[in-house]
Amino acid sequence: MSESYANRRAALRLKLRDLELDALLVTDLLNLRYLTGFTGSNGAVLVSAEGDEKTVFCTDGRYLTQSAQQVPDLERLIERPCDLALAAKAKGRTGYESHHVTVDGLDSLAKAADAELVRAPGLVEELRLVKDEIEIEALRMACAAADRALAALIQHGGLRPGRTEREVARELESRMLDHGATGPSFDTIVAFGVNSAVPHHRPTDAALHKGDLVKLDFGALVDGYHSDMTRTLVVGKPADWQRELYDLVARSQAAGRAALAPGVALKDVDKAARDVIEKAGYGEQFLHGLGHGVGLEIHEAPALSKVGDGTLSAGMAVTVEPGVYLSGKGGVRIEDTLVVRESAPELLTLTTKELVVV
Amino acid sequence: MSESYANRRAALRLKLRDLELDALLVTDLLNLRYLTGFTGSNGAVLVSAEGDEKTVFCTDGRYLTQSAQQVPDLERLIERPCDLALAAKAKGRTGYESHHVTVDGLDSLAKAADAELVRAPGLVEELRLVKDEIEIEALRMACAAADRALAALIQHGGLRPGRTEREVARELESRMLDHGATGPSFDTIVAFGVNSAVPHHRPTDAALHKGDLVKLDFGALVDGYHSDMTRTLVVGKPADWQRELYDLVARSQAAGRAALAPGVALKDVDKAARDVIEKAGYGEQFLHGLGHGVGLEIHEAPALSKVGDGTLSAGMAVTVEPGVYLSGKGGVRIEDTLVVRESAPELLTLTTKELVVV
Repeated sequence: MSESYANRRAALRLKLRDLELDALLVTDLLNLRYLTGFTGSNGAVLVSAEGDEKTVFCTDGRYLTQSAQQVPDLERLIERPCDLALAAKAKGRTGYESHHVTVDGLDSLAKAADAELVRAPGLVEELRLVKDEIEIEALRMACAAADRALAALIQHGGLRPGRTEREVARELESRMLDHGATGPSFDTIVAFGVNSAVPHHRPTDAALHKGDLVKLDFGALVDGYHSDMTRTLVVGKPADWQRELYDLVARSQAAGRAALAPGVALKDVDKAARDVIEKAGYGEQFLHGLGHGVGLEIHEAPALSKVGDGTLSAGMAVTVEPGVYLSGKGGVRIEDTLVVRESAPELLTLTTKELVVV
Repeated sequence: MSESYANRRAALRLKLRDLELDALLVTDLLNLRYLTGFTGSNGAVLVSAEGDEKTVFCTDGRYLTQSAQQVPDLERLIERPCDLALAAKAKGRTGYESHHVTVDGLDSLAKAADAELVRAPGLVEELRLVKDEIEIEALRMACAAADRALAALIQHGGLRPGRTEREVARELESRMLDHGATGPSFDTIVAFGVNSAVPHHRPTDAALHKGDLVKLDFGALVDGYHSDMTRTLVVGKPADWQRELYDLVARSQAAGRAALAPGVALKDVDKAARDVIEKAGYGEQFLHGLGHGVGLEIHEAPALSKVGDGTLSAGMAVTVEPGVYLSGKGGVRIEDTLVVRESAPELLTLTTKELVVV
């Protein structure tokens, strides 16, 4: 692991040299974790363009033992506050994360630093766009925990009539823990019947009835990485409109997945899936973008939507999640987490996308 | 509820007038929730110094229904991004939350706004320091959920030898949900035996043994408010050193609680508890501050510690949590959540502080 963090810092160093920066002060905790492996709640790192020998990590006394284990390969400062302690050590042109540092925070940095502070937004996030194999393995495990939790839920009769949305959400989250998650990756969405027409419905005490659509949107957290999957099922025999709606969304989702390849414009992936739904006359009922990046955050770049520029690269991890929502009736969303590869995309969420009838 | 949000905005308005601000652009989501009741993940409010009639709330299309229910009393804008949409509507001297707005974010605001943007850090946080009765009731319920979860854990044999720290943490969190929590208020700390000497130990697969100290630091989330409680128990007959350590920390904690009164300096509360431990010769083993404010955040102002200025006011909600940690041996921490009152402080975490032997 230590080696992979060193590799990430080496990749960052190339960017620093391009920007003629002597160092970057990384204060965002997720970026810090990405670059060093540190998982505590307070810390920062001053990444020198010269190399790891001149790079300094900082945290406070609570994390003395933990940081010695997690960050054995960098000079370590035990100080509080870390951003100011590292700013005082900076020399030359020092970048700071102007997209994370607050207006007041910059004032404090400027008082603490002799160095020239230079805006340097998004450098670590640019690296994080393309996942390395260690990250992808964490995503695989997170997706597997969610897959297995859903299988166990269904297997053990978790979706029987009479159960409430809240109960099902809680059981899903509990079963993800059983299967290796450290927690849910976001608040689980469970929506029965007409509630499935609300894209981001919060679970209520509404009970499950025969004939209901059941929309489950949930994910697991493993090693700090987030999985994200939606499945829509039917309890009892599906009505014709339910099956038709399901098939439409499934075709759209397949088209979106098929469009995932290096070099493809982000908005063209959205279009590939959206076209299927628009042709069927439901464009107005597809209320959101097609998908988003996942990694150390549940929502990160790239966004797959109608707007926004950029193209896919191999190693990006994204969701593909079209949905059609018929207000007062019901909705279907189908979502996978995948990794863009030179060949076909790698599917990480393996639960079937056949319409499951429970 | 609507009325209490209106009262909070009225209190903010007095501050705006003092600062000769025409409006405050509130973009921090917790401050937004405090002022409007909105719990979604995207939104902002432009609070006019003139009154609620000129105050505008903004969120995006996902929260159309939810925001109509939660914020029925303000003009509503459905737009994205909200900060820029509201900045464009601002007139005159408009404060912004310079302790939350990033350096890059301010650039975008400045481009969107015709108004004069003025730094206005911490205004809503100052109001949040003193809790109103609706907030205190939420804290009471959060503390009750934690109390009841711990009682049920012990009652059902949750602390029998052989169980792991992870299992106990999970059961505590699950039992808090049973008793009305929407979630844990932070990652539950469960530490057995020598692990109890680590102040912020993360639960492991270590098993419980007879004679172990058991340190449980946990809390429940109710209506967005966080409870925080630590209890240290013993499994089987306590050794003399365990009982002595426990009694010392309990006396320190009682001294800290007794010091809570309006007008008392924050550092004097810390001192009241710390003196007891220092006199016993364990000052070096009390590794952290005495306590912190709780509310919409698990850690918020005021900090009760050796450093830092300020005094207590009636209505502040704080923790009192001295601890002594004997490395390689074991540690004891005892923590309550309380509200400062004109008379004696109101204790919200009601679990006994007698040494519980299970």
